[in-house]
Amino acid sequence: MSRQDSRRPDQLRPLEMVVDYLEQPLGSVLYSQGKTRVLCTATLDERIPRWLRDSGRGWLTAEYSLLPASTGERTAREASAGKQKGRTVEIQRLIGRALRAVTDLEALGERTLWVDCDVLQADGGTRCARALGKAGLSRALTDSVAAVSIGIVGGELLLDLDYEEDSSAEVDVNVVQTGAGPLVEVQATAERAPFDRDALDGLLDLAESGIATIRDEQKAALDAAP
Amino acid sequence: MSRQDSRRPDQLRPLEMVVDYLEQPLGSVLYSQGKTRVLCTATLDERIPRWLRDSGRGWLTAEYSLLPASTGERTAREASAGKQKGRTVEIQRLIGRALRAVTDLEALGERTLWVDCDVLQADGGTRCARALGKAGLSRALTDSVAAVSIGIVGGELLLDLDYEEDSSAEVDVNVVQTGAGPLVEVQATAERAPFDRDALDGLLDLAESGIATIRDEQKAALDAAP
Amino acid sequence: MSRQDSRRPDQLRPLEMVVDYLEQPLGSVLYSQGKTRVLCTATLDERIPRWLRDSGRGWLTAEYSLLPASTGERTAREASAGKQKGRTVEIQRLIGRALRAVTDLEALGERTLWVDCDVLQADGGTRCARALGKAGLSRALTDSVAAVSIGIVGGELLLDLDYEEDSSAEVDVNVVQTGAGPLVEVQATAERAPFDRDALDGLLDLAESGIATIRDEQKAALDAAP
Amino acid sequence: MSRQDSRRPDQLRPLEMVVDYLEQPLGSVLYSQGKTRVLCTATLDERIPRWLRDSGRGWLTAEYSLLPASTGERTAREASAGKQKGRTVEIQRLIGRALRAVTDLEALGERTLWVDCDVLQADGGTRCARALGKAGLSRALTDSVAAVSIGIVGGELLLDLDYEEDSSAEVDVNVVQTGAGPLVEVQATAERAPFDRDALDGLLDLAESGIATIRDEQKAALDAAP
Amino acid sequence: MSRQDSRRPDQLRPLEMVVDYLEQPLGSVLYSQGKTRVLCTATLDERIPRWLRDSGRGWLTAEYSLLPASTGERTAREASAGKQKGRTVEIQRLIGRALRAVTDLEALGERTLWVDCDVLQADGGTRCARALGKAGLSRALTDSVAAVSIGIVGGELLLDLDYEEDSSAEVDVNVVQTGAGPLVEVQATAERAPFDRDALDGLLDLAESGIATIRDEQKAALDAAP
Amino acid sequence: MSRQDSRRPDQLRPLEMVVDYLEQPLGSVLYSQGKTRVLCTATLDERIPRWLRDSGRGWLTAEYSLLPASTGERTAREASAGKQKGRTVEIQRLIGRALRAVTDLEALGERTLWVDCDVLQADGGTRCARALGKAGLSRALTDSVAAVSIGIVGGELLLDLDYEEDSSAEVDVNVVQTGAGPLVEVQATAERAPFDRDALDGLLDLAESGIATIRDEQKAALDAAP
Repeated sequence: MSRQDSRRPDQLRPLEMVVDYLEQPLGSVLYSQGKTRVLCTATLDERIPRWLRDSGRGWLTAEYSLLPASTGERTAREASAGKQKGRTVEIQRLIGRALRAVTDLEALGERTLWVDCDVLQADGGTRCARALGKAGLSRALTDSVAAVSIGIVGGELLLDLDYEEDSSAEVDVNVVQTGAGPLVEVQATAERAPFDRDALDGLLDLAESGIATIRDEQKAALDAAP
Repeated sequence: MSRQDSRRPDQLRPLEMVVDYLEQPLGSVLYSQGKTRVLCTATLDERIPRWLRDSGRGWLTAEYSLLPASTGERTAREASAGKQKGRTVEIQRLIGRALRAVTDLEALGERTLWVDCDVLQADGGTRCARALGKAGLSRALTDSVAAVSIGIVGGELLLDLDYEEDSSAEVDVNVVQTGAGPLVEVQATAERAPFDRDALDGLLDLAESGIATIRDEQKAALDAAP
Repeated sequence: MSRQDSRRPDQLRPLEMVVDYLEQPLGSVLYSQGKTRVLCTATLDERIPRWLRDSGRGWLTAEYSLLPASTGERTAREASAGKQKGRTVEIQRLIGRALRAVTDLEALGERTLWVDCDVLQADGGTRCARALGKAGLSRALTDSVAAVSIGIVGGELLLDLDYEEDSSAEVDVNVVQTGAGPLVEVQATAERAPFDRDALDGLLDLAESGIATIRDEQKAALDAAP
Repeated sequence: MSRQDSRRPDQLRPLEMVVDYLEQPLGSVLYSQGKTRVLCTATLDERIPRWLRDSGRGWLTAEYSLLPASTGERTAREASAGKQKGRTVEIQRLIGRALRAVTDLEALGERTLWVDCDVLQADGGTRCARALGKAGLSRALTDSVAAVSIGIVGGELLLDLDYEEDSSAEVDVNVVQTGAGPLVEVQATAERAPFDRDALDGLLDLAESGIATIRDEQKAALDAAP
Repeated sequence: MSRQDSRRPDQLRPLEMVVDYLEQPLGSVLYSQGKTRVLCTATLDERIPRWLRDSGRGWLTAEYSLLPASTGERTAREASAGKQKGRTVEIQRLIGRALRAVTDLEALGERTLWVDCDVLQADGGTRCARALGKAGLSRALTDSVAAVSIGIVGGELLLDLDYEEDSSAEVDVNVVQTGAGPLVEVQATAERAPFDRDALDGLLDLAESGIATIRDEQKAALDAAP
Repeated sequence: MSRQDSRRPDQLRPLEMVVDYLEQPLGSVLYSQGKTRVLCTATLDERIPRWLRDSGRGWLTAEYSLLPASTGERTAREASAGKQKGRTVEIQRLIGRALRAVTDLEALGERTLWVDCDVLQADGGTRCARALGKAGLSRALTDSVAAVSIGIVGGELLLDLDYEEDSSAEVDVNVVQTGAGPLVEVQATAERAPFDRDALDGLLDLAESGIATIRDEQKAALDAAP
């Protein structure tokens, strides 16, 4: 099976990161992976959740949203519906956990670091592009963190699924790793068929090689920023 | 009084319009006016409001949002709060009215044209940048429409207020005009001091000259698009 | 074109103001303009918005509502729907701005003055009747403020549109003026056709004459109150 | 113990009913009982609840609200809070049940009769004034219905409690009766002390005499209406 | 008319109470009355409502819910709908009032006692089973309290209606009594036909005998608990 | 390190399943694992989501809730707050995915199977107990499915974490497997420290042995049910 855009099974789509895309927030990065385009920003808030008062520690919260037109056919705005969808909630919790794994909350002090990921255009892998995108914020973080999606499509193990591939995947996996190597999060879901331990191992290998590439690009983008 | 960025009182900030910024929606434009940056998109929905069924006419609805980090200090996401703020509601109703004034709803057929304006970075004049930005959508519209903000700051009549100027304005005015000339909307509000008919006239003159400039830039951006 | 109720184009509908209609609130007025009947009340709240704490200044907030049966055919209660409609939000923001323009917030002290306008029966001009109605509260205010609606119907400039006229108006304008003369708010909207500067001037002339009449009636009503 | 306003224990406050207070709704009555003033309206809606479709029967729904300033100190508007309070829900369910008891839902046909009770000023007994107020709507109803509040205050059985009395009552009772005599609803609540069967009997006697008076006034008001 | 389960008109369904059904909450009881099964728990919260601060008194709040499958056909979860239904609000207010009538709020101190009643399976009388169920909490209360439903079905006065009977009752009555005897709450509602004073008397007699039985069972269950 | 309740690292807490605990729903099971007690029910709804109409396929939706007192200290009821928490949303999506993996949606027909999991008492592993608990529903399912939580606590790999262990785990893993063997979902999260591939392998081994035990108990419970 050949991929729609002629990529090899273990090949990422073209990456682009514009660090400090905006002037006003503490940090920002416009992250593109193929047609997927995500704007990630970091802002600080002097308030913290009630349960952390007088703890000497801060908190990191992530929020995620698809702009209405990001999906081609319009997706209703959650602010108009009055509540966030289950998928949104699930994704922003994943991003938050991934980033807290490389954040020194004591060093942050009693403040909240908000990471907002707004998808301007979606073509698969938005949750990974997001976790990734925070490259631009790594100055506030203790280590870098990167993520990829991998999956089984038509029996074949593929790296970095686009929307078409994601829609027909039998198994869908997201992996988050720190710059130093170990795993932060593994979410493997049987969308159409259960999977065995061997397949899981093959997918994790593929993830590791993709993440190594992303890590290099992150470093280059940050080095290039003023 | 000289302006922070050395502009003349009747001078607009630098404009930039990237038509078809996104591949997937029907239409899109990334509009910048100074530091203000707004992404406007147009999408079509086959459904219409109940009160228009079997009328042979379509509808145009606008929605507006500030991304959380667009304001430098973070603004809470309305989807998390569960409702839109009064200011948001007021602005999106204004955009909708302005665009419907140049839309042929019969020609649209029984469909809804959604215009979404998401402010990536805000530095004054976002409601005008938005109304304006729809330039990129004008292919679906019968005429173009443009808007500027003008105001009285420290007794002086100024065109295209930035955030600093807007915050200290005595009078704040938004004007929307069609490409063909006549007015679509005038909203003049005394923020700190009432104003008289002469001042209103002076502000409307200033608006007209600003809108003429914007109209030329719109035309140029659309001509340049593939 | 003659008006349904035989009024001249520059004639207001009959006005009636019952000052101190209720015994319990700080201030109240039952305001009628033709069939439109609005109950406006003022109450004081010792709390203020967070951003005004320790500022030495107070705040004025307006809220507006149509009673369900006020429109003949029933309008759903916003408390049941769980949120206010866009039109409601827009109107109450207009009323708030108009009244703050004539309120001395320092003199008020760190308290909130609530102005509630509940429309018992609606027949056009409710937003103006409301802004107006606050006559009864002017004891807490530094100056009076009055408002009228004017519009272009069938090409003719008319003062004080009723529901029928409002529904078919090409241009709809609301003007708020202080007792001392200058303008507080001008909102001119092209409902069906754009308008030019000359038409706007003619409408503002009409507004001024209508407001002068209302100002006299306000004064008479307040003088008559015990 | 003598009552603040010198009434006898078994005496109602002065009643006033203005039938057809508004021109536009199907029916309306402005009902006053002492300082308590309630505007009740009836409107018809061609839609019915889903579970009644094709049943040949209609429905009657009541909604209730306190205007913000009706209580002297301002009560927050439920539409702003985004939901109705428990007390509101409980009261409007009581009103709905009482009125359905005297409504011929088959005769109504597949439509919904909305009864809205908005309290302009509250001084005790608003839930009874409301049930009562529907006198003005009795043309759409098969029988009349009336309600009173009675209670035990300082050990004494009193008819028609005002706000002061209600606040200090040991036992609070609402009784609804049809014009033809029998009971529709009895709600007796121990606010401060449990009560025995004898006290309940005494209170029901008091209620009956009060309701007889109200029934006469209802009839007079309806006869007087054009 | 004979009852579906061959009970006499004045006979309760079989009662069962498992005191301290859960290990973790302050108190809990699993209460069954026929097929109706309700889990009631008590927990303490150190916070109190704002209006009780520095009063030296605590508060008791009850909340009630039907589990989705408790009704056989699924009832939508109120947390998903985003608001509680009118019936839920009405019931939990009744439970709260009944329990506060036998609670010494001064002795409780400035804390809130939460009573949660979750219906695992519903077959009529859930509101009574709930009020009743609190038997298990009586250690925190000054007296016991018990409740029954009675009604008129097919002209006959019946004790402890099941779902079938409740659905076709002409009159539906809930009575709450303290252990010491007097009444706390009487709610009598004409569901299909008004009722007279004699019928009400007969129903109250039936309630008293049922409550006496329940009181004995409560005592036995508490005595049996470790 | 020895476990609080003297279990071996690879030992489950005592399991108990009461199949058909309720009479009214289609299926129900009261599932206990140590102190954790979860009531799972299945009900059928003839409606399906809009996007499945005329597809010939049904849907399975899961909803999850903690009863307020289940956590010892009271957790606010989500129906009162007006929305579900992020954790709730995430868990119910996991349960839904796990069960859909073993459900034949074509065989179900155009209907929705609702699975409701209400936690009566929580002591760790509630999300696994839930996925598991559906044993009782397996008659409607094509295969069984079981889940366990495993984790790293103080450097040691442990099966079936209780609340204490879960609160201090460095790594927290949930695994769902079908009866026939393969994996349905793996969610591994670094709560306090990243983990490597070897640790993940060890945890998956532990999960497999625990799931084998649970599968046997499920089978026994179903065989024992009438």
